[in-house]
Formats: sequence, structure tokens, C-alpha cells
Amino acid sequence: MEFTRIKNFIDGEWLEETDVKYVPLFNPSTGEQIGEVPLSSEKTSLAAVDSSHAAYDSWKWLPLNKRMAYLFDMRQAMINHKEDLAVSIAVDQAKHISEARGEVERVIQILETACNIPTLMQGEHLDGIANNINGRVVKQSLGVFGGVAPFNFPALVFGWFIPYAIGVGNTFIYKPSTQSPLFMQKMGDIFNEIGLPKGVVNIIHGNRSIPGTWYQNPKMTGVCLVGSTPTAKKMAEACGRGGKRSMLLGGAKNYLVAMEDVDWDVFIPNFLHSCYGSAGQRCLAGSVVAAVPKVYDELIERIVEASKGVTMGDAMDPDIYMGPVISAKAKANIEKYIEIGIEQGSTLVLDGRNPQLPEANKNGYFVGPTVFTDVTPCRTIAKEEIFGPVVSVMKISGLDDVLNIIREQEFGNGACIFTQNQFYAEKFIQEADAGMIGVNVGVCAPHPYLPFGGIKDSHLGTDKVQGKDGIDFFTQNKVATIRIAPPAGYEEKSIETSSNNSVRSCVAQ
Amino acid sequence: MEFTRIKNFIDGEWLEETDVKYVPLFNPSTGEQIGEVPLSSEKTSLAAVDSSHAAYDSWKWLPLNKRMAYLFDMRQAMINHKEDLAVSIAVDQAKHISEARGEVERVIQILETACNIPTLMQGEHLDGIANNINGRVVKQSLGVFGGVAPFNFPALVFGWFIPYAIGVGNTFIYKPSTQSPLFMQKMGDIFNEIGLPKGVVNIIHGNRSIPGTWYQNPKMTGVCLVGSTPTAKKMAEACGRGGKRSMLLGGAKNYLVAMEDVDWDVFIPNFLHSCYGSAGQRCLAGSVVAAVPKVYDELIERIVEASKGVTMGDAMDPDIYMGPVISAKAKANIEKYIEIGIEQGSTLVLDGRNPQLPEANKNGYFVGPTVFTDVTPCRTIAKEEIFGPVVSVMKISGLDDVLNIIREQEFGNGACIFTQNQFYAEKFIQEADAGMIGVNVGVCAPHPYLPFGGIKDSHLGTDKVQGKDGIDFFTQNKVATIRIAPPAGYEEKSIETSSNNSVRSCVAQ
Amino acid sequence: MEFTRIKNFIDGEWLEETDVKYVPLFNPSTGEQIGEVPLSSEKTSLAAVDSSHAAYDSWKWLPLNKRMAYLFDMRQAMINHKEDLAVSIAVDQAKHISEARGEVERVIQILETACNIPTLMQGEHLDGIANNINGRVVKQSLGVFGGVAPFNFPALVFGWFIPYAIGVGNTFIYKPSTQSPLFMQKMGDIFNEIGLPKGVVNIIHGNRSIPGTWYQNPKMTGVCLVGSTPTAKKMAEACGRGGKRSMLLGGAKNYLVAMEDVDWDVFIPNFLHSCYGSAGQRCLAGSVVAAVPKVYDELIERIVEASKGVTMGDAMDPDIYMGPVISAKAKANIEKYIEIGIEQGSTLVLDGRNPQLPEANKNGYFVGPTVFTDVTPCRTIAKEEIFGPVVSVMKISGLDDVLNIIREQEFGNGACIFTQNQFYAEKFIQEADAGMIGVNVGVCAPHPYLPFGGIKDSHLGTDKVQGKDGIDFFTQNKVATIRIAPPAGYEEKSIETSSNNSVRSCVAQ
Amino acid sequence: MEFTRIKNFIDGEWLEETDVKYVPLFNPSTGEQIGEVPLSSEKTSLAAVDSSHAAYDSWKWLPLNKRMAYLFDMRQAMINHKEDLAVSIAVDQAKHISEARGEVERVIQILETACNIPTLMQGEHLDGIANNINGRVVKQSLGVFGGVAPFNFPALVFGWFIPYAIGVGNTFIYKPSTQSPLFMQKMGDIFNEIGLPKGVVNIIHGNRSIPGTWYQNPKMTGVCLVGSTPTAKKMAEACGRGGKRSMLLGGAKNYLVAMEDVDWDVFIPNFLHSCYGSAGQRCLAGSVVAAVPKVYDELIERIVEASKGVTMGDAMDPDIYMGPVISAKAKANIEKYIEIGIEQGSTLVLDGRNPQLPEANKNGYFVGPTVFTDVTPCRTIAKEEIFGPVVSVMKISGLDDVLNIIREQEFGNGACIFTQNQFYAEKFIQEADAGMIGVNVGVCAPHPYLPFGGIKDSHLGTDKVQGKDGIDFFTQNKVATIRIAPPAGYEEKSIETSSNNSVRSCVAQ
Repeated sequence: MEFTRIKNFIDGEWLEETDVKYVPLFNPSTGEQIGEVPLSSEKTSLAAVDSSHAAYDSWKWLPLNKRMAYLFDMRQAMINHKEDLAVSIAVDQAKHISEARGEVERVIQILETACNIPTLMQGEHLDGIANNINGRVVKQSLGVFGGVAPFNFPALVFGWFIPYAIGVGNTFIYKPSTQSPLFMQKMGDIFNEIGLPKGVVNIIHGNRSIPGTWYQNPKMTGVCLVGSTPTAKKMAEACGRGGKRSMLLGGAKNYLVAMEDVDWDVFIPNFLHSCYGSAGQRCLAGSVVAAVPKVYDELIERIVEASKGVTMGDAMDPDIYMGPVISAKAKANIEKYIEIGIEQGSTLVLDGRNPQLPEANKNGYFVGPTVFTDVTPCRTIAKEEIFGPVVSVMKISGLDDVLNIIREQEFGNGACIFTQNQFYAEKFIQEADAGMIGVNVGVCAPHPYLPFGGIKDSHLGTDKVQGKDGIDFFTQNKVATIRIAPPAGYEEKSIETSSNNSVRSCVAQ
Repeated sequence: MEFTRIKNFIDGEWLEETDVKYVPLFNPSTGEQIGEVPLSSEKTSLAAVDSSHAAYDSWKWLPLNKRMAYLFDMRQAMINHKEDLAVSIAVDQAKHISEARGEVERVIQILETACNIPTLMQGEHLDGIANNINGRVVKQSLGVFGGVAPFNFPALVFGWFIPYAIGVGNTFIYKPSTQSPLFMQKMGDIFNEIGLPKGVVNIIHGNRSIPGTWYQNPKMTGVCLVGSTPTAKKMAEACGRGGKRSMLLGGAKNYLVAMEDVDWDVFIPNFLHSCYGSAGQRCLAGSVVAAVPKVYDELIERIVEASKGVTMGDAMDPDIYMGPVISAKAKANIEKYIEIGIEQGSTLVLDGRNPQLPEANKNGYFVGPTVFTDVTPCRTIAKEEIFGPVVSVMKISGLDDVLNIIREQEFGNGACIFTQNQFYAEKFIQEADAGMIGVNVGVCAPHPYLPFGGIKDSHLGTDKVQGKDGIDFFTQNKVATIRIAPPAGYEEKSIETSSNNSVRSCVAQ
Repeated sequence: MEFTRIKNFIDGEWLEETDVKYVPLFNPSTGEQIGEVPLSSEKTSLAAVDSSHAAYDSWKWLPLNKRMAYLFDMRQAMINHKEDLAVSIAVDQAKHISEARGEVERVIQILETACNIPTLMQGEHLDGIANNINGRVVKQSLGVFGGVAPFNFPALVFGWFIPYAIGVGNTFIYKPSTQSPLFMQKMGDIFNEIGLPKGVVNIIHGNRSIPGTWYQNPKMTGVCLVGSTPTAKKMAEACGRGGKRSMLLGGAKNYLVAMEDVDWDVFIPNFLHSCYGSAGQRCLAGSVVAAVPKVYDELIERIVEASKGVTMGDAMDPDIYMGPVISAKAKANIEKYIEIGIEQGSTLVLDGRNPQLPEANKNGYFVGPTVFTDVTPCRTIAKEEIFGPVVSVMKISGLDDVLNIIREQEFGNGACIFTQNQFYAEKFIQEADAGMIGVNVGVCAPHPYLPFGGIKDSHLGTDKVQGKDGIDFFTQNKVATIRIAPPAGYEEKSIETSSNNSVRSCVAQ
Repeated sequence: MEFTRIKNFIDGEWLEETDVKYVPLFNPSTGEQIGEVPLSSEKTSLAAVDSSHAAYDSWKWLPLNKRMAYLFDMRQAMINHKEDLAVSIAVDQAKHISEARGEVERVIQILETACNIPTLMQGEHLDGIANNINGRVVKQSLGVFGGVAPFNFPALVFGWFIPYAIGVGNTFIYKPSTQSPLFMQKMGDIFNEIGLPKGVVNIIHGNRSIPGTWYQNPKMTGVCLVGSTPTAKKMAEACGRGGKRSMLLGGAKNYLVAMEDVDWDVFIPNFLHSCYGSAGQRCLAGSVVAAVPKVYDELIERIVEASKGVTMGDAMDPDIYMGPVISAKAKANIEKYIEIGIEQGSTLVLDGRNPQLPEANKNGYFVGPTVFTDVTPCRTIAKEEIFGPVVSVMKISGLDDVLNIIREQEFGNGACIFTQNQFYAEKFIQEADAGMIGVNVGVCAPHPYLPFGGIKDSHLGTDKVQGKDGIDFFTQNKVATIRIAPPAGYEEKSIETSSNNSVRSCVAQ
């Protein structure tokens, strides 16, 4: 694989950063270094801000149908480059190629939904709210937004932030993860291919010093993040101090709940997809499996058996099920959680440490499916986000019990129930204290037509991503109060008597 | 030009109608016969109904994202065939080629807005509307709709009816005008090109016996029309008798109002486009120009001069401004209105009869720009839809006067004002008794993002076309009332006491 | 009981109709005549039209907050007169007093929801839909509407029509049923009590000659009905001919479906309320009970037993369950259906003819609970609306079977399922071919927050009553297309360079 | 006037705070001390949190119609106590009695709009978003919110926060200003009068140590403020650190722009109301008057003359125009700004220091109308919020000039233009860089039907108050993804063949 020196995309140009540190970029499937990523300078970051700020003035006033034309073109270009885009994710992020393809397709769907902006962005108008007063709400763009992406969804997070941000008229500065920058290298080319005006989207690589240039910068309007909860809280603080709008998605700990009438044919494939998809590295990954006593033993037996069937190898290998985690450090961290699980007394019924691997992947960052049973809610592995293929199985006394456990959690991203019972399903939808709920679904990611996001420590801010929430975050509801008063000399005639030409009466003659 | 024998498109096949009368199809620019159109049999019409009814069962339940994929594909296919589609309109309807291109582009924009269906079609959900009761509104398709198109917008009317109808899950039978069938011959091929399931759209040619098979037919759900008001009223009656939903657009008589502060640089090009575009054959064509005394004389002088500059010739000739009217009969009818205008005492200041024409178009159906002045509201040419390039100029005393005249009109499609004054503009928007209003705009057709349609005799039914109205017409708001009651044996524990595992309290320990 | 000679309420005055026929008004609980109702003249009807038409001009332009103030006042006045209003219904319509109270309370809730008009009536605004073009949708009132009410919901139908119609700015002429006019006699007083401007609501009594004056009347805009399907179709026809907007609710035949997991504790009280409430005289009354084989026999046993417990007597007697039907004619008609049921071979397991009654009610119009079993879908009692306490029990093979039967029905008002199963419930909500669906609910009337109405022959028109649908029917979406062009002399400076006063830069100095 | 020792309202009880410091409460019209206000302890603050947190569990699950009933009752009770409530504001806040009445009426209108919650709070539902997948959005309450109010709108800010917060299902802790606590003392009684459950609203008095107990408290969900920008930023920081949702309204500097066609009959009364209403102490007070050269001199002459006519005296005196400012400290601060204005070279054409006053008000905190001319954008009095009756007049070259000045301002609350020109009006609505715009309106406060709030440093957070924004802030869009899959044993029959009972075919036989 060719060695890639990652560049910044600023004002429509690919610029190589000099005189700064570069960090190595690895292929996690093999451990091989495949490139390097600049920790760009503050000066470069400010150049990106200037570029997006300058671009805003004309982009903002572009008629809506012309901004929409760029989104339709971007969609078509992504379709044309679909496989390339998917491979870019499968390499540096080591997302399994079939999941990588799914991620790109999902982003295309998000773009298609962003094409609904002309409907979503309509403000309101109300005549005669008081004497001779009309009221109008205009949904208006706000300026330059900056976004910071995590390593695990290089394409999806682009989709959450950029199409909505720029579709409504803002401009955007995007900082990909230094661990998975390849996808945006492709996207920059696409921006130029479709002729997106310079500066509408800038891409810059680096560490937290990049957003550090945003918080007090009068040219910046707001900040978005998908990341960890501590980072989200720090950024919320900085945004508050600087008066910036923010939408910050943090960590998660998601429960899969099996009721006594669980349908195993539905549950098992959803369990596998939820807990081991992306090697457990996603904010909607299943992490705790809670089961009522009646099915608890059978559930353990079934998931252990299913987990043993999970094959591992290179993310580009279509025949395996699960690829590596993102880095050696991530691997070590997950293994530490496994140790803590054992220490605190949970039963390790399947140990994913030191898995069997193809020869070529011996140096990759792999952790196999790992299952603990007899986990109780206060244990570390039941509360903290592990971000790996480690499952905690918990016995619950019933629906109210697990609803209570979920409510007391600090995170509130997703929660899923498996049942045929309408009362259980509806009660869970209403009462499970999380932002996203699944019924007979393992990964409760809403379709792009609807908003995506959690509550409590999983989400800081009031708006989620996608759909109407996306519009709310990236626009303000500007309100105009308009007096409709006649000019000074105007003599307002009574409506009834103003005309000598009564058409309807002349019809009758 | 090749002679075309028009076929029906039924269940995905192009079928030639036999044993029925065919009517000739002309090129109005030259008077040359270029094809023939079947007056299809009742049997064929019923076959179309059966096909669309059969297609409905599976089309209806196709997931929304899959129906949307067809709309995106249809859009792309129309872009690919744009020029072909435009030429088809410029030939049989003799719409000027640049206007024909505009019409196709507008339909593509309508399709793009129909891609907003996932947002527009969202129903509502409300928990706990009463004790343990949830309420839900589902916007649901209804069945098979039939649509009848006029000659003057073969593409636009397709756009108004079909993308929304099928996008939300209905199937559709479309009857083009026998005077302009060529556009839909291209569209049928596009339907097959994108693999639209058979019967989702059927195209059938004929006279009013085609919709005659719909009104009492239990397989049909509703009927749409763009046509004349008498036809609309007859179809409304028949739909009422048969219990069919209907949306029927009728005739129009649109005013362009010039106030004392009219900006001539804005007014004149808008006047020309409105009154002579499509040779005056459109439902939003300007037909009466009303001016206040202060600018009345200057206005006449200016519009006569501008009208004299209107060049005429073949609709395919990019260098001329205005093409012919649709038929010899239409030409004769317009000329009859000119005679009535003279008879009733209006002043004919520009006579468009017997215009100068290129040799090749001597047999085309041409009427030139015609201007009457001193027209009063009760005169026939001020009240009836002429559907040709005939303008009536009327002196009004002021804004209230013309608002009163418009209110007493039977039609209520569009009305436009030309002014710089905010009070005039806002008062006109509020009080002009028409469904569509223009301010400093000559053709007040709303952009596809918003609904299109008139009131009074210009529109029968409660919903307009495009946008939210389009969704309202083609769906029902189905409401579910759902009791969320526990199963008989379920012991609902109090939320506070159900758990022994208080996570947050264990954090504190 | 005092004898009441019913008057018309026109232009704020109670007017006694002379020189016309009066029809007797009965108390159905006793058969006693309690008053008489005029079949008002065409001249009086036209006076009502004139009054409402004249009132429209000023009512329409009243600021929204002032129109809303009348609705808040009307709500408060109805609360103040709640018991009086309920008794009025319990007497002439003989609705059981507790149900009458419920009806009045429901109408108050409808009024409270109509107070949401300022939110519901907001149009849309979209800047820059094309170069310098803004688009605006104004939801605007239309004129004078007429409404015709059935005997069975004298208060509810008032609530469906009038608060929404007048709240958005229309005026209204209301024709109560000649069989239950007393409620509106009270409401007229309330209109005056709150100072509602004259003519905003007129009340006129009579037969179909009253709406007969509306269809071709240029002063009328639209017509509403709650009545039978044949009447609805005739009115739809007449409205079509006259170019009037219409919303016409017709008949119904509602299924209650018991699945194998039916919860009897939920089912039985819901069954009683649905089938025998209002003596079966409502458009959402349960009429066919469909059960799967597993519970079919038990269901018959349970409902017969429960039906036998239904007590009958005077509608004002709080201790009985069910009152009489509306008239001697209605009673005879229901008994005819019972005979047809027997003739066509269904099993009469409970015969409500000649029920036991209190002495004072011997001359009332009573039919007791009646149950047929072994009914099949093609039988008359399974297809036609009986409008009385007659239940048909049908054995179904499963969910798909009953969904098919419902789909082939001509009516499509309501359908209810009783199950604990989430799949059954959701499939029924999606596929039961009716406008209103209930899950574990016997009368699937949506709460006033959401729309109410059926499909197929149960509803003619595109909008339902209540909520957003109510707004859609009583307003048009008027669309303005506004060019924002500078005045001729205006020199538009570039935004960047127009100012010599750079505030932010001066901050930095 | 009776001396009032202010109490806290916690868990439905009026509790006197002991062992804490009390601050004096003055009548600003006279300088007389009329009471004292506790700086409540942290312990009391935590008791309020506990109370509201406990109340949340049951309040949240109360059916919506029951929560709405409390809002309707609160509205009625406020109407009943209207004058009392107004007087309470006119005393401690010294808002002029007619303005105080207006404020109470406005709050009643806000309550009426909050009664639209059943419409505003509807989530979305979408069937079939993918194979067998339905999606649902539920707008759900979040927990306990705390709010901090400024002195200048004791009633309005209550209206912005509490009806929406509790109407959607949250509970609320409210900290009034220690300078104007009397209004909420009345409201607490009203809460008990209508039987609002204990703890749904708690009222606590004190300084910033009260919100200090909220930021890291797991029982709190979010924080609202109307106050100064520095306070807003500090609270945003603390909320970010603690993971709390926040909506924080800060300072303002509002421009009134007079174009060459300004109508003086509209401008002058609006100017007086905007600049001197509430003695200039409101976030939408006019503060800079910008005029084009053509009308600059006449404008100065006219406003100075009008300003001289402003009468001053006790806020309870109906015959005067303007009352005092809130405190001796505020008075001194305003006078300091006047000195700075003089120092920096602006022309003081009207000096409000040491105004003529009635004898009884000699010790009140009065500053009279003050007008500076020749002010330029960089001067302190043109940029900072003075919060008193001090007007800066600025000469602008034209519309683009003032738009640029406004854009470079740090605040972005309101901006008003006075013109008859439609282009000026629309351009100003689009481009004036503020959250609220007025056209021919001096105080551009949106009617309660629409959102209220600024941008830039005038507002931290993404949602404004009132209307849809109010709902967005106080709820989350919880999304459920629901698989509708048949139970294991279910054999899904094809729809076409499942029934042997074809009703429609039997009709035809």
C-alpha cells in the first residue's frame, strides 16, 4: 500500500503542512504504517477560519435552489465513487468492507434527506397576529461552524454535520480523526469535482489545538463534536465561555433487553450485529445484555455459541465477520476492562484475548468476542463505555427493574428491547431513559429521515443530528414583526363601497 | 418529421389501440399533421384500471426508501434526456423551445421536491393523550388515481400529479391531451428505463370516455384534472356521485396591477412574459392589465410599443419570441373574442389578427399580440378566459378599486401587483382574492417548494398541487388510538421501588 | 316538560318562523311530544346566507388574537352552562345523561384544541427560493360555510364544524337535526352572552331545502355534513356542480376484532360501550364482532351474558345503561334488520325486540341488545349500517382474513383490534382499511388533538375534522411569490465595502 | 405600604428563610424600603431541587390533557387576579402601571399559546422507512429545570419559562430577581389556588449561589436565564462542565433605522415607546437611532421635542409617561454613560440628569430622557447596553451602511426599520444581523405565537423562548426504531388469497 502524507483542504486547495509534527497512520488490520497525518499549526487553522468566513458572505445569499443543486451533485458524485469511498474506510479505520459500504450508503441516504431542506427549512408566517401586524419566522443560517469527528465513523459524521450545515447556508471547517483521515481526502476531491465554492467546506487535520482556535474567535459561530463525554463537556465549557452554539455527542452504554417472549431468530443476528459490528466501536453498540430469569440461561448458552462463530481477520476480507479495533492502545484498554471484569467478580464465559488470526494479521489490533455473565449494575463493565467486543450479561427481575437500571445510568444513548408484547414494547419506548430506542432491533440508529442522538451524558446541547433537529441546530428562527400601515396620504376606502364596477351584479343583468 | 402513431402504455408495455377512431396530431407551427392519437376504448381503459389496481397492492407496501429511489432515478433519467423531452413539447404543443426547456427543468425541480416526501409524509405521534392512551397519525396512500391533463403543459401537469401520487404509495392512470401526447411517449420509456414496476403508472389516450370509466369504479380512488372550469365542475359532480376524491384545476383570468410607483424596467419584461409567453395559453397568463390614472397613458404607450416588438415563428426557432396557438379552432376562438371586444366598445390599439409570418409557418395557427384599452370590468374580454395573446387594459381608481374587481370575479387563480410600496404589496397579498399572488412578478407560479393552485372557480377541491398540499391530497391522515395496558397478569411495580440496584447511589458510595 | 317552539338564530336574533310547516319534536325516552321545529323557508335561509356573508367581511379581518378571545370565552361559557347543555341532549336526542355530559366535555376539549389555531394556522415562508424571490404561504379563510348535523351528536358536530370554521376567519350557517335541536338553542344564547358578532354563526332549522339554497349561491363557499352516505354523495354532486368545497362524513360499519390473546377484562367493557353506547347510534359504534376460532365460542358466551346485563330506561335516569333510539321510525328500521338477519340464516342468540321497560317509558322507542352469531361477510347485517344495538358475531380464520373482509367493505370509518401482540397491533394499524383504528379500544374516536374521519364511503372529501385537517378544510394555502428588487435608483453596494465604520476592527484597536 | 418579608415557595408551602442574610427591597419610585428578600441557603436550594425532582416522576406521566387543564386554570386565575398582579410589578419593579398591566396581559397570552402544546408537542411517525421498520419521534420531557429571572420583566420571564417547561412535563425551580420578587409571591398563591401538584414549581430567592447548586447536580436537567451577557457566558460554561442543557438570554443594543421615506406619525410614538418605555430598561429598548442624511436633521428636531414632552413620576401614577429606573446603583451607572458620551465627543442635545420630579418622588431613582447626536459606531454609548433612557443618534449613509454596522455589533437582539419601501423592508428583514426584526415597529417583540430571542452575544443556546422553540428546548426528540416482525409461528398469507369471503364480489352477484 502506497504511503500517504495527508494534506489539508483549505479554500479549495490541497495544502501540505510543513514545520509541524506528523503522527503515523496505521492499517489496524495489519499494524502496518500506511501514512502520516499532520498536527496542523494554529496559523493554518486560522487560515481555514478566514477562508470559511469569507466564503460565508456569498454562500449564505445563494438562492436555496442553487445550494440544493450542489447537494444533489454531491450525492451523485458519491454514488459514482462509492467503492473507493468504502475502501478508504476499510483501510485506515479497518471497518469491515461490507460495513464500510453500508456506511457510505447511509451517508448517501443522509444526503438525500438533506435534499429535504427546502421543506425542513420553511419558516412560518402569520397574518394579523394583532392589529395590522404580521409575524414571520425565517430560518436563517448563522455563519461558520467547526466540527470534530471521531475515528469510528469517518463518513457518517461527515454526513451528520456538513450537508445540513452548508445546505442551509453556513460554511464548515471539519477536523477528521487523525486515525481515519482517508475518507475526507476523497471527499475533498469530490467537493472540487462538483465545483463547490472555495471555503464552503475546509478540512484540517490536527489535535485539539485546532478547535482551540475556534472558541473565542468572532468569525466562528458554533462547534459540533462526536466524541467522548469528557471531551464533550470540555468543549461545552469552552463554547459557553466563548458564546458559541454547540452540539456535542458523547459516550454511551447501550442495553439489549430480552423479555420472556424473545424471538431467538430475531435476537441472535441482532445481538451479533450490535455487539460485534465495527468490533463494538460504535456509540450504538450493544454492551449489556439484560434478560429476565425465564430466558437467562438459554440466552447465555445461545449467545456464547453465536459469539464463538464470529470469524476475524482483515477488514478487507469479505469472508470474515469482524475486523480489528482501531489501535494498539485501544486494544490494551479493552483488555484492561476484561481484567477489571474478572477482578470485580463477573464470570468470564468467553475470553476474546489472544484470538486466532490469519498470519497476515498477527500484528493487527484484534480482540475477539468476550462475554461476561452475572454482571450487576454497579460493576465497572456495566457502567463504562468499553468500545470493544465485550458483552456483559445481566439478570433482571422484569421490565420495571431494567427500566430503573437504565434510568440511573449516566449515559442515555440507545436501548433496545426484544419482545412480541405490545405493552412491553410501548412501555419501553416511553420509559427507557435514552434518546434512541429499538424494538426487536439491535442497533437502534434512526433512519436518516429522523433525528439521531442521546440524552444525559451522551449528548450535550438541545438538538440532535439529522432531520428537523439538524435544521434547528444550524439555523436560527429569526422573527420579524411587520406593521402593515398605509402611507400617510392614503385614504383607505371602505371595501364595500369602493367600486362602481360590480362584476357579479353585472353578470346578473 | 416522422409520422407517429401514438400508443398506450399499459402495465409496462406499449400497446397499439385497434378498432378505434384516431384523431390527427398536428404541428401547430406549420399546420402539418405529424401523427395520430387513438380515442381508446372503454375496454382498454378498464385494463389500465386493473393494471394499476393490481400494482397498488405491492407498490403500497414497498418501503418508503425504495419508492424514493425510483424518484431519484426518474430525476436522473429526465436530466439525461432533457433535450429530447423539451423538443417533444416544442413540436406538438408548439411551446417555444426555450420555454419547453424551462418546463422540463421545472418538472425536474418538482421531482426534487417530491424527494422531500419522507419529510412531508411524516404523520404525528402523541403519547398520553388520555390515561394510557397514545394517538398516532399515519399518512397513508389510498389506491388508484386517474389524471386528465390539458394540452398546454404536458410536462408540468405530469409533474404535479405523478411524482407525489406514486411517491406516497398510490398508483396512477394518466390521460394526456390528445393535442400534446408526445412528452408522455418519452416518459413511458423512462419508466421502463428505471425499472418502475408495471402498472404503477399507466398512460392512456382518448376523450372523456376514459375518465368516464373511473367515477363509479370501485377500483379507483380519486381523480385529478387540469382543464376548464365547466369540465372541472362536471367531473366534481361525477366524483361526488361516485364517492371519489377529486382535485380539479379550472380556468383563470389574471390581473397585472400597475401602481403609480411601478418600475417600468421590471414591469415590461414581466408583462411580455406573462401575456405572450406560451402565446397566452396558460392558467397564470396575464390577461387584464389594470393601471392607476397617473400611469395609465404611459403604460399603454409602453406596452403597445413592447408588444409590437414580439417576433413570431416556429416554436423550434430560438430567435423568435412567440409561437402559434395550439389549433385552428383555438385561433378562431381567440379571433372571436377580439371581435366581441370591438363590438362591446373597447379600443383595439394593437390587432394581432393576420400577423406577419415566415413562409414555412403560413399554415400555422398564429395570433399576434393584441391590446385593447378602455376595458371595463363587465365586458366579456375582462371576464372570460381567452387563452391567447390578447390583453385588456383597464383604468382603476386605486388599490381598493382593483381589489374589489378581483373579488367579484368568478375566477381566482393568480393576481400580480407592480409597486415599490410595502403597504400596497402587503395589502395586495392579503386581500387580492386569488390563490396565487405575485409582487413585481408577471407569472405568479409558486416555486415547486410551495403549493400551486387557485380558489373560487379556478379550483375545485381543498388541496392544491405541489408541496404539502400534494401530500394532503394523495394521502389520508389515518388515526390510531392505542391503549397501552398491561397484560392481565402483569403486576406494575411502582417505579421508585422496583429496583434494588441503584446505580447512582452506588456511584456515591 | 315545557313545550318548546324552536326558533332560528339569525344575525344575533331569535326569530320565529311563520307560514311554514312545523314538525313535532319528541322525547324518545317517553314518546311524549315536547316541542315543534320549523321547516324554515327558502327566504329565511337566504337571509341567513346574507347575514353570514355580510359578517364575513369584518370577521375575516379581525386580528387573530381577537378571534381567539371569542373561542376562549365560548369555552368558559360552555363550562359555566355544562349541565344545562348536557340535559338538552339527554332530552331530545335521548342520549344517556352520563354520555351527554361526556359529549359536552368532549366539545369543550375540541374548543380547547381549536385554541391551538394560532399554531395550526401558521403558513410558511421561504427566502431566496430563486434569485431575489421569496415565497410565502398564508393560510387564509374562505367565506361562508354551511353545515348540516345529524341527530345523534348535536354537540359534537357543532364542535367539529364551528370553532375551526370561525376561528380561522370564516362565518357559518348551521342546520341542526330537526330531531335534536335543543342543544343549539342553548348555544345561540351563549353566542350572544359572549358578544360574538352578529352573523358569524347563524342557526336555521329545516329540511334539505336549506342546503338547497347553498350550492349555486355565490355568497357560499363550502358545505359540511355529518350524515348518511347517500346524502353525502348527493351533496358532493351538488357541491361539485356549484363549485363548492365540501367535507362530508357518511355511514359506517365498524369491526371489533378479538385475537386469540384477547384480554376479556379489557374487551367486555369496551364491547358494551362500543355496541350499546348511544344505543348503537353512532358512526363509531361496534357492529360486527370478529373472533378467531380459538376464542369464538367463549366470546359468544361472554358477550351474551354481558349484553343481558344491559339495563334500559329513561335517558335521564343515571342508573340505567342504555336509553332509547331516536324515533319510532328508527326503531322499526332496526327491527326490520333483525328480521333480515334471521331470514338470511344467522343465529339470533339474543333478541332485543320488546324489551322490559319502566312503566314511564313504555311508549319510548326502545330496542334491547341483540346478538347474532354465525354471521358471514356477505349478509346484509354484516354490510349495512343498522344504527342500533344489534351485534353480528363472525368467525374469522385469522388476522389476514379479517383484514381482507374489512378491505372489501364499502365503508371505512373505524376498526378495532383486541390483542396483546405487538405484531398484530401494528399490522392492524397499517393494514385495516379504515380511517380510524383502535387497539384495545372499543370506540376508536381520536382525541380532539388529532383528526377524526373515515375513508371510502364513510367520508367524501380530502380533509377530516379536528386538528390540522380542520384547518386545511376551512382555509386555503394562498401562495405569494415576491420579488425583492431594488428601486430603480438604488445602487447596491457590495456588503464588504459599504461601511467605513468597522466596529469590530475598532474594538481591536 | 406594608413591609414584606419575602418567603420561598417550596413543595407547595411558603417557607420563611432563617439564619441567612436578607437584602432590602425598595420602591424605586420613592426610594422607600418596602420589604426584604432572603439570600437563601444552599440547603434550602437543595430542598427545592429534591422537591422538584420528586414531583417530576408523577407529573411527567400525567396524561397531557390533565397537564393542559392546569394551564387553562392558571390562565383563568391570572385573569381573575389581573390587577393585583399588575400592581405588584408597578411597585417593586416600578414599571409604569399601564405597562405593568400590559405585561400581565402578555403573560396571559403566553399561557394561551402554551395551551397549544398538544399541537406543538406532536412527534412524528413514519411507517415503512425500511423493510418492516417503522420510525417514531416522541417529544418527551427531560426532568427538572432551573430558571433565573432579571428584575425588569418579573411576569414575562415567568411566562417564557414555566408554562412551556411544565406543560410538556418537566418541573421547575424559579429564582426571581431580588429587586422584583413581589409578582411571584402572588403566583405561588395562584399555584396553590389551582391545586398544582407540590414541587411542580418551586420559587426560591437568593443570589448566584442558588444556580450554583444546579450545575453539577444529577437531579437537575437544564438551566434558563434572562440576564446579562457576562452572566450568560459564565452560566453556559458551568452548564457545559456539568452537562446541563441551557438557554440563556443576554444583553442587547437595538437600532431604530429611519429611511428617507420615514412616516413621522408612525416613527415618533414608536420611538417614545421603544426608548423610554420601562425607562429604557428592556432588552428590546431602542438605544441607537440611525437616520439617513436626508432626514437626519429633522429627526433630531422631532425626537428632541418629543422627548421633552415625556412626563415622569411615580410608576403608579396613570398620568405620567415614565417611571424611575430600578435602583440608585442603576441610576449612577446610566449617569456614568452620559459622562462617557460627553467625553468621547458626542453632542448632548438633551440631558436627563436631575429631572423635574413630583415632591413625593424626590428620592426615587430617576433619569430623564437623554439624547446624544453625532454618535459614531465605535463610541462606547453606541456599543454598550446602557439600560436607561439614553438615546444615541447616528448619521448613516444608507441601508447597506447601517446593515454593516449592525453586523459588526457583538449583540444581535433586535433591529427596527421605518420605511414605506418594500425593498428596504425586505432587505432589512433578511440582512439585519439580529434575532428579532421590526418594520415600522419600535419594540420588535414577537407576539407569543412566535419565538422570541436574539443571536450572537444576545443569546446563548440554540432555542429561543415561546412557541416551537420553547418546545424544542424543554423536550427531547426521542426516536424509536421499531421492527414489525411476525411472531415465529405466524404464517403470513398473501393478501390476495387469504379470504374466501369476497364481499365486493358478492355484491356483484
